Amino acid sequence: MASIKPSVPKGTRDFSPAEMVKRNYIFDTIKSVFRKYGYQQIETPTMENSSTLLGKYGEEGDKLIFKVLNSGDYLAKVNPEKLAALNSNAVASDISEKALRYDLTVPFARYVVMHQNEITFPFKRFQVQPVWRADRPQRGRYREFYQCDADVVGSDSLLNEAEFVLIYDEALGKLGLKDFTIKINNRKILTGIAQIIDKADNIIDLTVAIDKLDKIGLDGVTKELIERGFTEADVEKIKPVILLQGTNAEKLQSLREALAQSDIGLKGCDEIETVFKYIESCPLQTATLELDITLARGLNYYTGAIFEVKTNEAAMGSIGGGGRYDDLTGMFGLKGLTGVGISFGADRIYDVLEELNLFPTAANQSTQVLICNFDKEGETYALPLLQQLRRQNVNTELYPAGAKIKKQLDYANNKNIPYTVVIGGDEMQSGLLTFKDMSSGVQEKLTAEEIVSRMAR
Amino acid sequence: MASIKPSVPKGTRDFSPAEMVKRNYIFDTIKSVFRKYGYQQIETPTMENSSTLLGKYGEEGDKLIFKVLNSGDYLAKVNPEKLAALNSNAVASDISEKALRYDLTVPFARYVVMHQNEITFPFKRFQVQPVWRADRPQRGRYREFYQCDADVVGSDSLLNEAEFVLIYDEALGKLGLKDFTIKINNRKILTGIAQIIDKADNIIDLTVAIDKLDKIGLDGVTKELIERGFTEADVEKIKPVILLQGTNAEKLQSLREALAQSDIGLKGCDEIETVFKYIESCPLQTATLELDITLARGLNYYTGAIFEVKTNEAAMGSIGGGGRYDDLTGMFGLKGLTGVGISFGADRIYDVLEELNLFPTAANQSTQVLICNFDKEGETYALPLLQQLRRQNVNTELYPAGAKIKKQLDYANNKNIPYTVVIGGDEMQSGLLTFKDMSSGVQEKLTAEEIVSRMAR
Repeated sequence: MASIKPSVPKGTRDFSPAEMVKRNYIFDTIKSVFRKYGYQQIETPTMENSSTLLGKYGEEGDKLIFKVLNSGDYLAKVNPEKLAALNSNAVASDISEKALRYDLTVPFARYVVMHQNEITFPFKRFQVQPVWRADRPQRGRYREFYQCDADVVGSDSLLNEAEFVLIYDEALGKLGLKDFTIKINNRKILTGIAQIIDKADNIIDLTVAIDKLDKIGLDGVTKELIERGFTEADVEKIKPVILLQGTNAEKLQSLREALAQSDIGLKGCDEIETVFKYIESCPLQTATLELDITLARGLNYYTGAIFEVKTNEAAMGSIGGGGRYDDLTGMFGLKGLTGVGISFGADRIYDVLEELNLFPTAANQSTQVLICNFDKEGETYALPLLQQLRRQNVNTELYPAGAKIKKQLDYANNKNIPYTVVIGGDEMQSGLLTFKDMSSGVQEKLTAEEIVSRMAR
Repeated sequence: MASIKPSVPKGTRDFSPAEMVKRNYIFDTIKSVFRKYGYQQIETPTMENSSTLLGKYGEEGDKLIFKVLNSGDYLAKVNPEKLAALNSNAVASDISEKALRYDLTVPFARYVVMHQNEITFPFKRFQVQPVWRADRPQRGRYREFYQCDADVVGSDSLLNEAEFVLIYDEALGKLGLKDFTIKINNRKILTGIAQIIDKADNIIDLTVAIDKLDKIGLDGVTKELIERGFTEADVEKIKPVILLQGTNAEKLQSLREALAQSDIGLKGCDEIETVFKYIESCPLQTATLELDITLARGLNYYTGAIFEVKTNEAAMGSIGGGGRYDDLTGMFGLKGLTGVGISFGADRIYDVLEELNLFPTAANQSTQVLICNFDKEGETYALPLLQQLRRQNVNTELYPAGAKIKKQLDYANNKNIPYTVVIGGDEMQSGLLTFKDMSSGVQEKLTAEEIVSRMAR
């Protein structure tokens, strides 16, 4: 067999033991909070039928979907003329019936429709699985990455929105973040703003311009709005909305005044206010909740609340987001099922925790005790201790063969093993084993029983 | 958008919440034992370069590998004549550079070679990830399924083999199995058997025939050996080996006598004996360890120990297996690295636990308390209790909107929620809430504080 210099595909990653411990810490923390709020885990297959995925993410999205070649003689069924035309797009559907999951939302919608008769609604589910996108890889953007989603379908109660705010607060607080903002907006407010200037059709132009306020200021936004076809009068009318300031309550009050002529806009204000009231009853531990009417992510998709989370401790894009969508399952023929969901950006959270040094040191320790091994006699002596420690649920290793002490201590250090036990001739004779704390370097002479009771949790 | 009747690809599965809880229970149990023995988790990408996978699983294996279509204009680079010949195989390598992981072993070998300078050997890793095979789906055989592997590379110590026996014993015992057999053999013993009849080249014919002893008896095996080109004298010589009986020690003794002329055969006996000695020092809690010289799985691959695990409580094929391979990483240019590993068959273990009713009932409970919701007043009253329970790490839900009691209790029953709290007008006035044990049906009147202290863990 020829020797191949091995590599992984562009944009994909191996995760080493130290990385896995940290990733598990993030996922386990978020999952435990999802469960605490009554969300249940599901998993869907890596491959979906192409018909399930294609057409759901726009034309650009379709191009980013990884397609799986049909098995066997996949060319047999293709029209040779079509093939001769070398039209990759047209041929793809003939030679590929399956594709890799692009996100967790469409497979979830497919799941809900397929299993609608087994599901008790409201259905609160979470899902933590990788997704694949044939994007151009760059720093922080991968072709394989995990998504970490929670959604509830079949309930229009705004308690769900409030609980997602609480979930963000609790999960990110648990991970050690001390200063982060949960931004909230409502699609109905954006619709209202467009309505009061009679430009309902230009809502995207409007939100794109407003979104730049931070960067280009009011003059810049005004200029951009005019360029995009809005009138001076339009700008004058929505200026109070763009310049919204003060507390959340003050912002809401100003919005109500500005949107007085738009029923839908006022409904958006009511919804936001209801969420705020819930949060008053269940105060946030760490997060700041902020009404931000420039927030418009996934505009074509969301119909009510829109969320985004930013850390204020590190320069990083959003570390989470979500919102309400009123017709998630309509694409699969189940109409009128409303849903709301959020997502955690696990890779970015990883980078933030790393930058802020927030990973617990214990997160890097898997084995607790290494028993060193010099010869057969010591090894035989060590075996009962090894199994006693394990019986107490202490992760313990016996170095698998006699080796120099330096090599074994290097092994312990490289694996971040905090304690080692040395069993030499003296130790076997006296029954007092050398127990070393690897971080302090302190050595003690302890009996096997003492070591077990010291380590037992 | 047209409505599509949704389905999942043949041989793939959705996992519902109840299934996920059970699957997590299995995986978490096995992982905790891997960690206890010093194994560290890694993950590798779903897609590998085709060059990494192809040619590693034989011609039949190559056909079962799912290939991923190149992105963009994938036909542009293909020779039109080649395409016109409609040779699916020949074209595949031009239009597909990546493929889905077929097992965890080859990606692990690739990982070790790529990361050899960061790894401290001996390297004990575990990996729990799905793999994909374009097999014909049938009962118990899927196109996407999880593998659950532990391997150590860079150590030829037989302590590793013994520890894998202990890992099987502990993990399967923890899962509640009460009667299972860990079969052990050694490739060197099989080689020895072939050597003593001077038929080293016919080792596969030999093992295939011997393997049928249980089903066809000695006469059948004899007949089959003759058909496969062995002589009457050969059969006479190896009969004591085929009919091996008694305790492991007695079998080993008979083997040593039969293999007295084969150095390699005797070495195999020594290796098995060393493993047995380790296990004498670290007695098994549940499993039976049995020397079985008919065991030959993965013959072309293994060079030392061979393992297989069978439950004796349910009719099921092997629920685990593994062995030692002396040249895992040679295919990627890193020679001379020995390894030994085992695998748990998670899907089969799932079926066995289900059949024997061994899943803990708690494994089906995610939410612990449902607070029912009838009106806004009760909802407002409930919010502090909701968050107090959650602060005590009690998974708790407030039904998201007012609804009929029957609907809410059905919701609790369907989610296997063990306790419900009802807050009506009387309850609010008296401060005594109705706390119901859903399995016994017993209702009590308790204060919010009493409910919290009752549920807090």
